[in-house]
Amino acid sequence: MAYYIGVDIGGTNIKTGVVDSTGNIISEASVPTGADRPQDIVLQDILSAVKNSIEVSKLDPKEILAVGLGSPGAIDTENGIVIRNYNLGWKDFHICEKISGELKIPAKLANDADAAALGEVVSGSAKGAKRALIITLGTGVGTGVVVNEKILPGEFGHMVIAYGGRPCTCGRKGCFEAYSSATGLINMTKEAIAKHPGGVLADTAKLEGEVSGRTVFDAVEKGDEIAKKVIDEYLEYLACGIANLINGLQPEVVSLGGGVAKQGEKLLAPLRVKVEREVFKGLMLPKIVCCTLGYKAGLIGAAMSVKE
Amino acid sequence: MAYYIGVDIGGTNIKTGVVDSTGNIISEASVPTGADRPQDIVLQDILSAVKNSIEVSKLDPKEILAVGLGSPGAIDTENGIVIRNYNLGWKDFHICEKISGELKIPAKLANDADAAALGEVVSGSAKGAKRALIITLGTGVGTGVVVNEKILPGEFGHMVIAYGGRPCTCGRKGCFEAYSSATGLINMTKEAIAKHPGGVLADTAKLEGEVSGRTVFDAVEKGDEIAKKVIDEYLEYLACGIANLINGLQPEVVSLGGGVAKQGEKLLAPLRVKVEREVFKGLMLPKIVCCTLGYKAGLIGAAMSVKE
Repeated sequence: MAYYIGVDIGGTNIKTGVVDSTGNIISEASVPTGADRPQDIVLQDILSAVKNSIEVSKLDPKEILAVGLGSPGAIDTENGIVIRNYNLGWKDFHICEKISGELKIPAKLANDADAAALGEVVSGSAKGAKRALIITLGTGVGTGVVVNEKILPGEFGHMVIAYGGRPCTCGRKGCFEAYSSATGLINMTKEAIAKHPGGVLADTAKLEGEVSGRTVFDAVEKGDEIAKKVIDEYLEYLACGIANLINGLQPEVVSLGGGVAKQGEKLLAPLRVKVEREVFKGLMLPKIVCCTLGYKAGLIGAAMSVKE
Repeated sequence: MAYYIGVDIGGTNIKTGVVDSTGNIISEASVPTGADRPQDIVLQDILSAVKNSIEVSKLDPKEILAVGLGSPGAIDTENGIVIRNYNLGWKDFHICEKISGELKIPAKLANDADAAALGEVVSGSAKGAKRALIITLGTGVGTGVVVNEKILPGEFGHMVIAYGGRPCTCGRKGCFEAYSSATGLINMTKEAIAKHPGGVLADTAKLEGEVSGRTVFDAVEKGDEIAKKVIDEYLEYLACGIANLINGLQPEVVSLGGGVAKQGEKLLAPLRVKVEREVFKGLMLPKIVCCTLGYKAGLIGAAMSVKE
């Protein structure tokens, strides 16, 4: 059995682990990212965590073939450089060269969302899929496309689906993210509350102390018609973006992750109906499911991204 | 050197040829499709044309390893079946099984637009690109994505870019195709003529006897401001769709084909400016060029699609 190290670089914690070639985690370690410190100091912590996870695994270090890292931000996968990461304050960080130099095994860098997508394909919700699409519905929308267990570079979260529509953080208008992220759902909810300040939806938000991605689902549970309309509109846009990608990439599985996906079948059941209407007739419909690995997806995927 | 047969099935002609493993055409043959005849009769013509192109190539038939076919319509690439092709009147046509049975070599089926895209990558405008996107701006919009010289299945012509927008032939609203096809451009031109019936654009259309994809470009040559606005609007939508796909797929080359692409730099130069504005900052911009192989792309790509 061959073994690989996965490193998932997050804004709060950096998780490392030894993963076998079938995607099982053998050992794990985690360190706080400490994003306010110089990048070379953070590097030392990453290396300690990696060494720690190797030690815990009880494996002979020689059995560990390579290190795969998943990082957010603008990255250069070819050369293993984090070009810029605003959250971590990293700039032109030649992380692969440094890690590889220290551990004496090859190191490779992937986008963190892509790595998580690969993890779901290797041992999660999209296990065994020849082509899979993983969509994270969080603060933003992130997409990961995996074909034959290889990450396809690119990001469809900023695919414009509504020309001239809602402004997006990226500067474009009408992006998939502007409608289908948790932020998009929260904006739609707030707009509905502003229009109907005395309604059940407004009361639900007051009770919960804030408007979150959950608020509108909670109001639907109480039978609120306004909330139903908000979810329906949200799902129309989400289905539009997903159908674009199903037609374009023909995945066997579409897995949804992120905060909004916590609604499970409350989200998926009506979504499937809408997506089916929008997809090419005659095309085999993919399974639409929720991600299952949670934070482990990023760790497993980072490790598997370096497997030849 | 290994050799492959390419078959490009068109509505008017079926072209066959022997192609070497580097994408050079060794010999060619063409037969009228005769789309009104039963599919098994057409099959006999395809086989004759294939045998003819083998004969002309002067190769020992043993040197020819496989047949690759490019077909329009709904196809099942896994099982080599043309499920349905309305133009040709084909239905559940197990074409690969029949061709393979007759020629005693493997046969494989690809979408014709995908095959043409692969042709452009192997020996045309996108030669050597690790990831390439070929977009045909004709009656419709067709997209072909090629990664590491392999066709990625899927079609982005019906990606919705303007939610609730122009109705598309596919039943959705606001598709890339509804705006960026020659048909989309003709519709925009006709609308501008209806608004300004006495203008230069209207006169140009009258002189040419009809509104075509060229009309608006011809009126711009005469300095017409209305025509300039039409092209500008057309390019805005085209740039929107192309930027979606550049962000999503990170191609090294984007090649445009089809009738509208005949405008060459008149189309490409302003398009590049608009695309650059819409693409992720920091992303290496792909080359945006015109396809160079014409009909040969389909033939070469069909042959190369079967290469292991």
